[in-house]
Amino acid sequence: MNHPKILIKGFSKFSREQRVEFLNQWLNENVQPELDAFLHSNAEYQQAFAGFSENYLSNFYLPMGVVPNVLVNGDWYVVPMVVEESSVVAAASRMARFWAENGGFKTEVLGTEKKGQVHFTWKGDGYYLRSIFPAIAKQMRKDTEELTRGMKSRGGGIKKIELKDYTQQLPAYYHVDVSFETADAMGANFINSCLERMAETLDAKLNAHPEKGSCEVLMSILSNYTPQSKVKCTLECPVEALEKISGNYKPKHFAERFRMAVEIANHDVSRAVTHNKGIYNGIDGVVLATGNDWRAIEAAGHAFAARNGSYRSLTEVKISKGIFRYSLTIPMAVGTVGGLTKNHPLAQFSLKMLQNPSAGRLMEIMAAMGMANNFSAITSLITTGIQSGHMKMHLPNILNQLGATERQKQLAMEYFADKKVSFSAVKKYIDGKV
Amino acid sequence: MNHPKILIKGFSKFSREQRVEFLNQWLNENVQPELDAFLHSNAEYQQAFAGFSENYLSNFYLPMGVVPNVLVNGDWYVVPMVVEESSVVAAASRMARFWAENGGFKTEVLGTEKKGQVHFTWKGDGYYLRSIFPAIAKQMRKDTEELTRGMKSRGGGIKKIELKDYTQQLPAYYHVDVSFETADAMGANFINSCLERMAETLDAKLNAHPEKGSCEVLMSILSNYTPQSKVKCTLECPVEALEKISGNYKPKHFAERFRMAVEIANHDVSRAVTHNKGIYNGIDGVVLATGNDWRAIEAAGHAFAARNGSYRSLTEVKISKGIFRYSLTIPMAVGTVGGLTKNHPLAQFSLKMLQNPSAGRLMEIMAAMGMANNFSAITSLITTGIQSGHMKMHLPNILNQLGATERQKQLAMEYFADKKVSFSAVKKYIDGKV
Repeated sequence: MNHPKILIKGFSKFSREQRVEFLNQWLNENVQPELDAFLHSNAEYQQAFAGFSENYLSNFYLPMGVVPNVLVNGDWYVVPMVVEESSVVAAASRMARFWAENGGFKTEVLGTEKKGQVHFTWKGDGYYLRSIFPAIAKQMRKDTEELTRGMKSRGGGIKKIELKDYTQQLPAYYHVDVSFETADAMGANFINSCLERMAETLDAKLNAHPEKGSCEVLMSILSNYTPQSKVKCTLECPVEALEKISGNYKPKHFAERFRMAVEIANHDVSRAVTHNKGIYNGIDGVVLATGNDWRAIEAAGHAFAARNGSYRSLTEVKISKGIFRYSLTIPMAVGTVGGLTKNHPLAQFSLKMLQNPSAGRLMEIMAAMGMANNFSAITSLITTGIQSGHMKMHLPNILNQLGATERQKQLAMEYFADKKVSFSAVKKYIDGKV
Repeated sequence: MNHPKILIKGFSKFSREQRVEFLNQWLNENVQPELDAFLHSNAEYQQAFAGFSENYLSNFYLPMGVVPNVLVNGDWYVVPMVVEESSVVAAASRMARFWAENGGFKTEVLGTEKKGQVHFTWKGDGYYLRSIFPAIAKQMRKDTEELTRGMKSRGGGIKKIELKDYTQQLPAYYHVDVSFETADAMGANFINSCLERMAETLDAKLNAHPEKGSCEVLMSILSNYTPQSKVKCTLECPVEALEKISGNYKPKHFAERFRMAVEIANHDVSRAVTHNKGIYNGIDGVVLATGNDWRAIEAAGHAFAARNGSYRSLTEVKISKGIFRYSLTIPMAVGTVGGLTKNHPLAQFSLKMLQNPSAGRLMEIMAAMGMANNFSAITSLITTGIQSGHMKMHLPNILNQLGATERQKQLAMEYFADKKVSFSAVKKYIDGKV
């Protein structure tokens, strides 16, 4: 390898050609053809892509797949997904269809409020700070009017402005807690601009009377934790309707196993993480396809899963009076305008496929795909197992072990073609107990 | 919109042409040119991409950028990143260079053990179960020999097999907890195949003596929670060396503000989520570029952040005897063989850029990029703010407010060109206090 053992300076000002030439030297081979092979032939598109990242090299391809038969609150959707794990689209498609035949995904947006904070220290009279704060908050609203005008016209803006006292936890530390509505935008730039302007107001007002104390603003930034911007998705059907997917279990037994699988994710973090990961397999596929920020959505959801002191399942199951009910409540901040959403031709295409949804509707579709994938994962795990191909291969060994006749073997192979193979299931079958 | 109000059946068996034709009808326009525009002109590549997802439509482009000057444990790296947020590569590049000049990223793999579980109920004699379990575990090792042979030759295999009793939490519920080493593979298929085989052994052994009790296997699956597969990354320099990035703060003051910013993320979940999200901005860029699974890595890390009962910062800061020390400890499971890593030409290219690292070395590089992004975010937040462009625009207003002369204004514009603008900072400057 040929990396110079000194720093490369001014790299961000290199042209793409210079960056590729640098890589040629670094790797001691001409890699330009490999990188150029992924540029887009349409110059306008290519220019847009090259602007999506500093130190741009090329376009990384991820597969874009499609999930049909998605019924959300009575509306049909065809959902685009972008994810590297090949089974995700298959799982979502299988369960979208099953649930379309059983009432579909029932979803509800439980708020879209986002939050930002101005973090500061106040070394001085705490009573004075609390008493002057309402006037400061009023001034903050006034000083941000120019920034909030556009957002207000789209139905958004600043909601609450509150002072939070954390001095018991950290000496002299407070923050201003501000909640926002951001309409169909994720709103990060809007929120941060408002907060930094508010920080100026706070700084000016609190330092105007040095005899009362001194304020030092530490930082002003939106929060990616969005428990007030969340969505609920519910699946509900008669237990008997689960027969179509319950494999070699009776629907009632399947439902009990399902309930148990979810309960385990409430008591064991090792299972909870995998359980919730399956939800994000589905959600992130839509997040990427629409140009949204998966790191923000993952961080909010996993922290939310730990909100009661231990990391648990984001879903809940209830079986009552012959009805199976499964629900997911999950925080997320998404946008259908701004960011990559607007500038990426395939993100635009994804939104077109989704009938140009509002941010709220997009949250609902994402939650539905999260549910579809989680439901599919649990269903596979408690019936065939996810390595069922391997298990099928193992069936002859079990039959031999049990001393089955050739005729029994042949019948068993047919019987287990669509059922989960296990030692006990095969033994029951051979013993004539099924 | 033209979606048929009935279910589409057999969609997964449609050819790509049929799927696109379906979209044409659904959207009532010919979308084929839009989707075809992103296919690869190389037929062999295109065939590979089309195999990455069920119901494949096209290739979604994400920008691939490069971060030079990454010094990890004395070795230089040029790191590929794939992420839609344009500032991530810029932030990583800025801080990679700063730290390369200050000793680089010190990293250490703290284990690579992964875990899987066989979940089951045992209705019977608990003492019998515990007493027979060592024999069952022995049999499990024997029955998986065929599956583990290849992995053993690469230095991996099954480590511990333990019985965990959760009957206090959930009636009759136990699981078998199995730990694995998977060499340079993420190992999901290997682990799941072993677990499902072990479940058969468990089922057969425990149901062999019905008088002792009955076992029902619920599911067998790897865990995405990997607290025994984790990496630590440390940054360390004399406080004085921070001057280059400390903006208009003295290095010691900057370091104190930095410490406070991290402390806040230990006491306030709203800040903690955003703080950790910045870490994953950097990590996920490398995860995608190398064809790894970001949902698994995010889920493990965020649950780990909540391991002590409240969701906190994944980083720690210590300032002692004039030394600034900042560290990150983070779990992750990554592979450099298998999955998309092997089949995606640009994922292969990414590994080539990284000098074909082992899984452990890739963990270290990912952790370094996570640190670079988090360090950059905090540095920006506590100095210029992340909306500094906006604030610069605001400087004339503040000067007017303070009644500055034309000459004062001109000098102030020059002075604040590379400093954070705030009301109090400008007032201090005008009052001659700086």
